[in-house]
Amino acid sequence: MVEKKKKQFRPKARLPKGLIDVYGAEVRALARMLDRVRGVYDLYGFEPLETPALEYTDALGKFLPDVDRPNAGVFSLQDDDDQWMSLRYDLTAPLARFVAQNYDALPKPFRRYQSGPVWRNEKPGPGRYRQFTQIDADTVGAPPGAADAELCMMAADCLEALGIPRGGYVIRLNNRKLLDAALAEIGITGGEDDPQRLTVLRAMDKLDRLGETGVRLLLGPGRKDESGDFTAGAGLDDAAIDKVLAFLGAGGGSADETLARLGAAVGGLEIGAEGINELRMMAELFAAAGYGPDRIAIDPSIVRGLDYYTGPVFEAELTFEARSEDGQLIRFGSVGGGGRYDGLVARFKGVQIPATGFSLGVSRLYAALEALGKVETGAGDAPVIVLVMDREHMGRYLAMAAELRAAGIRAEIYMGASGVRAQMKYADKRGAAVVVMEGEDERGRGEVTLKDLVLGAEKSSEITDNEAWRSGAAAQIAVKRDELVAGVKSILQRTAS
Amino acid sequence: MVEKKKKQFRPKARLPKGLIDVYGAEVRALARMLDRVRGVYDLYGFEPLETPALEYTDALGKFLPDVDRPNAGVFSLQDDDDQWMSLRYDLTAPLARFVAQNYDALPKPFRRYQSGPVWRNEKPGPGRYRQFTQIDADTVGAPPGAADAELCMMAADCLEALGIPRGGYVIRLNNRKLLDAALAEIGITGGEDDPQRLTVLRAMDKLDRLGETGVRLLLGPGRKDESGDFTAGAGLDDAAIDKVLAFLGAGGGSADETLARLGAAVGGLEIGAEGINELRMMAELFAAAGYGPDRIAIDPSIVRGLDYYTGPVFEAELTFEARSEDGQLIRFGSVGGGGRYDGLVARFKGVQIPATGFSLGVSRLYAALEALGKVETGAGDAPVIVLVMDREHMGRYLAMAAELRAAGIRAEIYMGASGVRAQMKYADKRGAAVVVMEGEDERGRGEVTLKDLVLGAEKSSEITDNEAWRSGAAAQIAVKRDELVAGVKSILQRTAS
Repeated sequence: MVEKKKKQFRPKARLPKGLIDVYGAEVRALARMLDRVRGVYDLYGFEPLETPALEYTDALGKFLPDVDRPNAGVFSLQDDDDQWMSLRYDLTAPLARFVAQNYDALPKPFRRYQSGPVWRNEKPGPGRYRQFTQIDADTVGAPPGAADAELCMMAADCLEALGIPRGGYVIRLNNRKLLDAALAEIGITGGEDDPQRLTVLRAMDKLDRLGETGVRLLLGPGRKDESGDFTAGAGLDDAAIDKVLAFLGAGGGSADETLARLGAAVGGLEIGAEGINELRMMAELFAAAGYGPDRIAIDPSIVRGLDYYTGPVFEAELTFEARSEDGQLIRFGSVGGGGRYDGLVARFKGVQIPATGFSLGVSRLYAALEALGKVETGAGDAPVIVLVMDREHMGRYLAMAAELRAAGIRAEIYMGASGVRAQMKYADKRGAAVVVMEGEDERGRGEVTLKDLVLGAEKSSEITDNEAWRSGAAAQIAVKRDELVAGVKSILQRTAS
Repeated sequence: MVEKKKKQFRPKARLPKGLIDVYGAEVRALARMLDRVRGVYDLYGFEPLETPALEYTDALGKFLPDVDRPNAGVFSLQDDDDQWMSLRYDLTAPLARFVAQNYDALPKPFRRYQSGPVWRNEKPGPGRYRQFTQIDADTVGAPPGAADAELCMMAADCLEALGIPRGGYVIRLNNRKLLDAALAEIGITGGEDDPQRLTVLRAMDKLDRLGETGVRLLLGPGRKDESGDFTAGAGLDDAAIDKVLAFLGAGGGSADETLARLGAAVGGLEIGAEGINELRMMAELFAAAGYGPDRIAIDPSIVRGLDYYTGPVFEAELTFEARSEDGQLIRFGSVGGGGRYDGLVARFKGVQIPATGFSLGVSRLYAALEALGKVETGAGDAPVIVLVMDREHMGRYLAMAAELRAAGIRAEIYMGASGVRAQMKYADKRGAAVVVMEGEDERGRGEVTLKDLVLGAEKSSEITDNEAWRSGAAAQIAVKRDELVAGVKSILQRTAS
């Protein structure tokens, strides 16, 4: 063969791992969910902000000063002037950049909310994606106390606005200062890079998963899990372990009772007393506003990650259980949280600017709402399908669809090239409740036929007589052409009820 | 100096060029605008789809088969398995990937809309950003005719739903097949890589900007612009140029008149006749549905880019003029468009799948709505501010805000650490209409003071007497504490009217 055939390049249609498409009803339901949360944030006086997806890597804080490539965990690329940019990995770092950049012009305190995708360059897993949506609210420039308390109450309001009943969630509140005090009580006073401190905090964070016995092992000699893997312990002696466990167990009962137990555990240290005072101030506000310990509870076992928090921290936790598809009991646990961070804007400005924020994890919350049956699907989501019986009368079908739309009804004309049988299948696949048909007969009589697909499906499960089914008469009615809208409406009303 | 002082790394708070933040009222207004467009797409039976920001570069079609780095114009990075990924540069390429990937499971035709940011790695300019929002609707798997006509009508409906009056816009419609026929008439039959074809199409595309004289030069010997720059011409002879200009000028009047003129110009060729037939079919549907040439007009001068279109193409153009801030008359021109592309999904599947789509450019449309005064700002957007007169009574202020919120009124408690004077400034800066105050006096009387900031601003411009101004009594009222909500509502109603 002399001539080489030019090879046609044909890419495979696929998505990079850890990325997903969302389609149809789920997009609508997610949008409604975000609207509800934004509605609550709005009512509290927060203003919307939208920052771009890309930021300079150093502005996101993911650039170590002596390293010439960005930290792991972010998606990064170089701009044409060789500066590194990254896709934002959360909505807080862009907020800090925005506040530092526009500080003088902004009202202070500055209160904003933002929703949108964030990206993590991490190994994906079940339910763990490399792009996911967050919805945050933050108050920048407010001292500890009321601003933190407000976020806890707003978190509770959000969950209730989404249909999660009181008793089905709790906002668990702690204070980083108490954790520092508890560590100081057992002689750990090193900073963030003290490995023992890290090991102890990690152990404390596992109380709800491993219980007291497991945490005791992790604080002491180490722990072997079910698979045989060994996790090294913090090497504390029994007295120190008892102190830590007493601290972790100080929650429960009223806020006053918890605060009293915490006072006994860590109140002797200045930082401990400070943390307790902040929590007491917040507890008084909860009481004044009627948010009892069933909604917001002080819980010393809340660690809330190991990063930038400096004061009150809290987690929004769902406490109800649901059955997964394979019948297993699942708890959804934390669906968001936040806390006070006083150092984030200081990275740019050199002066501490106190800030406190709250973030909801949208996909975990959505999964929980699905399990609760609280996803809002929206009535009238499925369109009415106008069949194309005679292609040369397309103008008549267009006019019908236009009339339905003018009445606020979603209406769609079948746009493919196939016949009526395929068009009916299409209507089924689209989930349509009503199909509109006008063939030659109907046209002659000045009528249209409306097929009620919901009723049709019900009847077809009852009908054993093949003849009766084939006639299909059961679930369809003829109406005068000028009563199209009224006829469709009456079927949709029946279907919705 | 023996000890080297550790240098504190302090990044500058800035955004990469061509990227912007959007804040407050503009975010709300943009969201309302997108909601309106989505509402129209919904009514027509399109379903929402959300694809991730990152796609494999080859799936986006930005990878040339023999090149090991992605094409220019996109932001690209390598995944940890060395595969190239890019940020989507439009919403059509991800749609093609989605359809190819899920073809068997999808209803056919497949109708989806999508809104979201897209990214272009291009040189930014005034009004040209490297991240911007598009909102698209596409029908995949529908033959030419009704599906294209529907998109034109839907484009018109969108603009009217946004408040652009009839007569303020026109959807200009053409057909790529007519352009191919017009080129064939003058002997240009080469494909996309024929440089003369490209030069002629570029010249045709400039009719609205340069007029007949300018286009004649570009089709012939070339043209020198005002700055003295010379653009090489296509080198056509006069007879050919006359033919092209006759084709370009065939628009105007009724659809029948335009189609007759087009028939004379290019109807002798099979591809020309085919294009005319498609437009005739569409024109009949416009007439049947009542969309006259004031809303949708056939215009042979519409070229609509040089890329993947294969049949009907159309542009949504705003025809009104507005004055810019410096008094200059501006026309907004095209705010979106679309057309038929039958080859995009074929890139993956090897078989042609007919498709047609429409895309609105959100920021240009927003600028036009601003100029028209049609941006929806939303009543009650500004929050009511509850001042903190006595910090120890914070619980009382929280309760007031909660009452207002329960009545659907945006309410915010001042969360900063400053005194009443700074708090009033804050309320002004936030654009608040009402401020709620409860100091010791009010508390003693069981009252709250409501300050009407809108009325206050009006009065202050009237008051010349310093005493009267300082007393501030003019624009404030006292109401019983349990009439807080009613009092605030009555002020807000007055302000809104």
